[in-house]
Amino acid sequence: MTAPSQSPIYDRVALIGLGLIASSMGHAMKKWGLARSVAGHARTAETRAAALELGFCDEVFETAAEAAKGADLVVLAVPVGNMGALAEEIAPVLKPGATVTDVGSVKQAVIEAVAPHIPNGVNFIPGHPLAGTEHSGPRSGFATLFANRWVLLIPGEAAPDAVAKLRAYWEAMGAFVEEMDAAHHDLVLAVTSHTPHLIAYTMVGVADHLRRVTESEVIKYSAAGFRDFTRIAASDPTMWRDVFLTNREATLDILGRFTEELFMLQRAIRMGDGDMLHDYFTRTRAIRRGIIEAGQDTAAPDFGRSVTGAGE
Amino acid sequence: MTAPSQSPIYDRVALIGLGLIASSMGHAMKKWGLARSVAGHARTAETRAAALELGFCDEVFETAAEAAKGADLVVLAVPVGNMGALAEEIAPVLKPGATVTDVGSVKQAVIEAVAPHIPNGVNFIPGHPLAGTEHSGPRSGFATLFANRWVLLIPGEAAPDAVAKLRAYWEAMGAFVEEMDAAHHDLVLAVTSHTPHLIAYTMVGVADHLRRVTESEVIKYSAAGFRDFTRIAASDPTMWRDVFLTNREATLDILGRFTEELFMLQRAIRMGDGDMLHDYFTRTRAIRRGIIEAGQDTAAPDFGRSVTGAGE
Repeated sequence: MTAPSQSPIYDRVALIGLGLIASSMGHAMKKWGLARSVAGHARTAETRAAALELGFCDEVFETAAEAAKGADLVVLAVPVGNMGALAEEIAPVLKPGATVTDVGSVKQAVIEAVAPHIPNGVNFIPGHPLAGTEHSGPRSGFATLFANRWVLLIPGEAAPDAVAKLRAYWEAMGAFVEEMDAAHHDLVLAVTSHTPHLIAYTMVGVADHLRRVTESEVIKYSAAGFRDFTRIAASDPTMWRDVFLTNREATLDILGRFTEELFMLQRAIRMGDGDMLHDYFTRTRAIRRGIIEAGQDTAAPDFGRSVTGAGE
Repeated sequence: MTAPSQSPIYDRVALIGLGLIASSMGHAMKKWGLARSVAGHARTAETRAAALELGFCDEVFETAAEAAKGADLVVLAVPVGNMGALAEEIAPVLKPGATVTDVGSVKQAVIEAVAPHIPNGVNFIPGHPLAGTEHSGPRSGFATLFANRWVLLIPGEAAPDAVAKLRAYWEAMGAFVEEMDAAHHDLVLAVTSHTPHLIAYTMVGVADHLRRVTESEVIKYSAAGFRDFTRIAASDPTMWRDVFLTNREATLDILGRFTEELFMLQRAIRMGDGDMLHDYFTRTRAIRRGIIEAGQDTAAPDFGRSVTGAGE
């Protein structure tokens, strides 16, 4: 399904921020020859040195503006809370006709922060690769991170040819690309990712509080359901802080629905209403079966991909 | 890790209830020669026929009493809510010196229901294999289900040699055995399994309600955290109904802690308290790392076992 391109899609790509996502993009560009040159910027000298050592950047720069200068594609790969200041910094050096994209897990807040700084003649096409592992940093990336994973693009008012090029770029890395608007993106992700992550963080926190159950017991018996929660709850704290602060409305909406529903089940347990519980569990089981069947009906999404933790 | 025994551990084993757990025990007994003969009982003729067809029982009976008669080990493998009536039915035919065990996911309620029926001279040793998949029924079992999984035994007042024999039986199927008291078992499982399952059921239910996000979107993007929840939420509805009804106190205790904690995080999101969120997520990440490190420190539990869903 990965179709390596025969010639570079972009001449020069700048990766701003060199964590898991950007380093994986760098490795993928090198593996499949998707850019003639890759420039990078990270705040620390250590991270910049790692990028050169691992070879996923050709050049690194101490400032984002130096890295972005002359680039055909600029990828903003920093925590969502830092996107606005970054856009302001690089705006003066952006090349006419260039494309700016990002890889943040929320889209409305990024657009509000970044779009005002984008000069006329530059295409801003927000993006979100639904890929990740529980690891972070420049040494955690690998070329196949995006293989068989979805990338959501928010084309907005961008030029169609610029959108088509960015789509081809992601597809060359093995990803499936879907376009949607920013508000819908944020709601879909609140349901499928953001709220589940908050819940997993919470459950792991509760287990840690419980002194009557020793830590070793929690660890030993974690395979009985709890392990999936700990995997979800291990992702980058800064990224997730920014996700919840910037996708606040949709997350609070889904959380409200979740607690209403949980209280209903909690009350059924307290009252001994077995029929209600049985009906509920039967319905959710059917949803799971729908997911499995959908996965079998289409060769596209690899639902069996099991080694990575949760994405964004 | 699995050490097949050279000679049968029990002469005659009776499996009462022939679902995922019992059929896996039957296959394991056949594979490693752990019993001279395996008798089985299930309510439906279809299930009994499947047991003979698949060969994990040598004989099947229309009543539990017929199956249990003359058995050296009787395994109660029915939903927790049915255990009491079952024990009452088989009590008159239990062989002196026999062992009765069960595989239910809660232990205090099973002991309350079963123990009063157990005759003098018969050892009742409640048990709980922390193993399972999202599938159920007599055709879902396989011999290696218990390999590298924990089995918790509640020895109580049973004869030490009977406990040692039951331990050897589970170890011959590749399991790790731990002994504890029933109240502690129920609390440990409420934290590591029962509450996580209820939460997962709830989150899947919420996603199903949300008409603004289409079902196909929930399915397509489920890899972004939600998929782990759907896997957990796909287990047998009857079993889980009984778990929550019978481990009510511990589950409600942990649920109360969970919602307090969740409301604290929800408030931090609403108030924009990024420091609090960041601190919390940093702490839960450390817990996850502890689990990974523990898994590396000991060869015993296979935390990497990834294909099965959650256990009990």
